Amino acid sequence: MALAGAGALLHLNGNRIVQFPYRPANPTRLSPSSYNKAMMVMNQSYWDSIHADVETHLREAIHVRPPLSVYEPMHHLALETPQNTAPALCAAACELVGGHRDQAMAAAAALHLMHAATYTHGHLPLTDRSKPMITHHAYGPNIELLIGDAIIPFGFELLSMSDDSARDISDRVLRVIIEIARVTGSQGIISGQYHEIQYDESKNNHDLELIKRISEKKEGELHECGAKCGAILGGGNEDEVEKLRKFGFYVGMVKGMLHRGDKSDEILMREVEELKSLALDQLTGFNATKVEAFANLVGS
Amino acid sequence: MALAGAGALLHLNGNRIVQFPYRPANPTRLSPSSYNKAMMVMNQSYWDSIHADVETHLREAIHVRPPLSVYEPMHHLALETPQNTAPALCAAACELVGGHRDQAMAAAAALHLMHAATYTHGHLPLTDRSKPMITHHAYGPNIELLIGDAIIPFGFELLSMSDDSARDISDRVLRVIIEIARVTGSQGIISGQYHEIQYDESKNNHDLELIKRISEKKEGELHECGAKCGAILGGGNEDEVEKLRKFGFYVGMVKGMLHRGDKSDEILMREVEELKSLALDQLTGFNATKVEAFANLVGS
Repeated sequence: MALAGAGALLHLNGNRIVQFPYRPANPTRLSPSSYNKAMMVMNQSYWDSIHADVETHLREAIHVRPPLSVYEPMHHLALETPQNTAPALCAAACELVGGHRDQAMAAAAALHLMHAATYTHGHLPLTDRSKPMITHHAYGPNIELLIGDAIIPFGFELLSMSDDSARDISDRVLRVIIEIARVTGSQGIISGQYHEIQYDESKNNHDLELIKRISEKKEGELHECGAKCGAILGGGNEDEVEKLRKFGFYVGMVKGMLHRGDKSDEILMREVEELKSLALDQLTGFNATKVEAFANLVGS
Repeated sequence: MALAGAGALLHLNGNRIVQFPYRPANPTRLSPSSYNKAMMVMNQSYWDSIHADVETHLREAIHVRPPLSVYEPMHHLALETPQNTAPALCAAACELVGGHRDQAMAAAAALHLMHAATYTHGHLPLTDRSKPMITHHAYGPNIELLIGDAIIPFGFELLSMSDDSARDISDRVLRVIIEIARVTGSQGIISGQYHEIQYDESKNNHDLELIKRISEKKEGELHECGAKCGAILGGGNEDEVEKLRKFGFYVGMVKGMLHRGDKSDEILMREVEELKSLALDQLTGFNATKVEAFANLVGS
């Protein structure tokens, strides 16, 4: 019976590890469509529970305290920023390699904070902005500029403080700091934002290469970083870290391209399908009971 | 003869460790005024050499490379930002506790980068700025905003990468990351900038308490952090780290208060003299040949 279980399926499937949506060996108790619906609900509640944990961790980390002039708007702006999948992927990747999601919570919170800083500064009313600005701002631009600046080091502070000398994880924490610094700094999102400014100015929404370059630097690398950091913090081996890194990258690319591109563009949609397939390929060999939620992330 | 040397003087002086300017036991070869001048030149060249080393380190760390759209303005903005004493103090403190200044170069560079990010964002032409802006900008505000954002994680990346597993210094590096994150984030400069906005708006340049609060959060804590981090990275013991932390704080306060305050205000100048005296008190017990340059930093 064990051989007919999910683990065996994964083993037998070779290249492609999950049929999507995945069906168990003995689905007789539910009709296929009811089963799929039940699985989707279960997977959704898995991601919901991770998002809720990241938010709780953030609320506690940035609880309003002196200096109120800093923590009050920081709390507000960090929690007002829409959630992103990359922090959740970080916590989930940590669990997938056998760790506890708590081990990745500081990194997940730092990733959300980096995203919040970019989001806040992306909505500043600068004098030469070509983009229309959102009209409601709870704080003036001076404060939003300052708080965006404060959020970034705060993320690194959370990360460094998650070091636990009793568990001798300094090397893991430093590795994660390097990864997050790279993706949020010169080599990552910033360069994506630079391309995005060009894209907005060109008004050419069909430039697939530019869409891919922006998606790579923004969503692609952010999700890659999230999954990789989670795997490092959960104690994954190098093979697992590498697979989850790639998985994150492909998932991010899919998200970015679908968000930015024109869904009626057949070339774009074909590339998206290829990326989904590449993402699923990376899940080979992981714990089958946990893989389903990951595969679900790739689904449309 | 050794007893009449600098070390003995330091030992005998009890509370106050150096006469300022310091004179050696046998100054007969030079007249006192020529000697003072020679010492000032020597001390100046010590700080000049440290500033030059920090700049060389920065030029190499941010050498212009792809993505050019990011590194070219980052290189420009980081090196255009006027040098600050805090990074130099970091390298010097490392030497004072017996380390080599190279051990503190990444931290010194990170401190300069944090200062450069603050400086760049402090000169952005926001729509509601009350302050007159500098008119020459090599880049548009979008780019300056983005690059300021990229500089901060880049500083943390430099720091994390300075970890040398062969020398088992991860704990020191993580401690320094926490210190720099704190001072550049929510609890430090940002809160100082917040007070500075209030100060600029109040137009009351005689509010000594507000001047002190801004100087504490801006120059005071930045120099405190620089000196402390240098001492940590140089392998100083906790007593040395604590003394250099205090020294840095007092030096920064003196700089901030003299920069911001009215020098004809007797109360302010009396407080400055007290801070200078407190700074010199912290130098007790350190290597006498190196202490002179530190004492020089406190001088007017």
